[in-house]
Amino acid sequence: MGKNSDLNKKKFAGIERFTMVNAMHKKSFEKAVNEGKADKQIIPMCRFVSKTKNFFTSSSCAGRIILLQLPKGESKKDASFHRKWHRIVKEKELWEGINAVTSGELWFKLDPFILHIGADSLENSKKVLAAMTKAGVKRGGIIVAKPGKFLVELQGSQGIAFPVKKRKKVLVEKEYMKYILERANEKLEKNYSLLKRLEKEFRKGLK
Amino acid sequence: MGKNSDLNKKKFAGIERFTMVNAMHKKSFEKAVNEGKADKQIIPMCRFVSKTKNFFTSSSCAGRIILLQLPKGESKKDASFHRKWHRIVKEKELWEGINAVTSGELWFKLDPFILHIGADSLENSKKVLAAMTKAGVKRGGIIVAKPGKFLVELQGSQGIAFPVKKRKKVLVEKEYMKYILERANEKLEKNYSLLKRLEKEFRKGLK
Repeated sequence: MGKNSDLNKKKFAGIERFTMVNAMHKKSFEKAVNEGKADKQIIPMCRFVSKTKNFFTSSSCAGRIILLQLPKGESKKDASFHRKWHRIVKEKELWEGINAVTSGELWFKLDPFILHIGADSLENSKKVLAAMTKAGVKRGGIIVAKPGKFLVELQGSQGIAFPVKKRKKVLVEKEYMKYILERANEKLEKNYSLLKRLEKEFRKGLK
Repeated sequence: MGKNSDLNKKKFAGIERFTMVNAMHKKSFEKAVNEGKADKQIIPMCRFVSKTKNFFTSSSCAGRIILLQLPKGESKKDASFHRKWHRIVKEKELWEGINAVTSGELWFKLDPFILHIGADSLENSKKVLAAMTKAGVKRGGIIVAKPGKFLVELQGSQGIAFPVKKRKKVLVEKEYMKYILERANEKLEKNYSLLKRLEKEFRKGLK
């Protein structure tokens, strides 16, 4: 009896926690959309997840092309976004960014999507992993596992990352960056298609 | 009573599964070491994990610098390792690799470590995540969660990736690659230091 009552206590604490975090994250999502802070490409998916009973979305990014500034070369702590695009980028925009004043090391990066999906139970968080596998997304796992709060992190795998400038010195040539930008734009499109496939699987598997 | 006996059945099936996968993975690890197929930098960590009661290691990589060949440009399915180093790389070696015959697109990559640690239970797999956080490893999650088989994937976050050659045409200059290789070697050292910190935390937290 003692054991059962402990289990029941844990279960109710879990339900309480989920009710709380679920409401909080659903509210944050609506707020981000209203303030224009949510990436357009993932709004439909996040909206769907947000309307399910057992799942919510937390901080997510649809995938992007960025120029990242590392003032001390190495530490990501001090890194700052010099430019950030959640869409196809034009050569002219890229060079405007590279030629603008920067300090330390400047990196060109194509970051694939990263999603955080919350669930109320281990069983339901496994449904997120199952949808991921069906959609062909290779990277993902449960990063938080507490009664009433299971958080799954999913990531695309299309990536590019390399330094393009050191202090005032541009390290790369026009012709090379033209080629890279074409490849990065292609990869970004693929990344967004993969997100669409994932959304379809979420619509089939999450309730 | 019916519910309890179901729970007991599940529990025993879990113990049976863990006994099996645990023995299998511990055997594979010893085989890989004996055949010289395990990365030197992670043997001490894997050996420690392998000797615990509740954990095992599955396919893992200590981190590496590679030249990756993508015959059709895009698909990773057909990708092949043109060169692979689990250590600091010299300029001469790098250029030997770039100048050798290749087809399609050739990428220079610094891949951070990726580890797979198995556990017998959700509680124990969470100990792997806790050790990860303490060591300062940012990426990791539970990718398989079945009774008796919980698999945690952990990854470093130091990465470089960009194309250096398209068919016969080298796209990058000597001076640039010298700079990149220095940075890549630095990052590889940092990656191995992070692995050492992780090993320390494993020794404290896993039994």
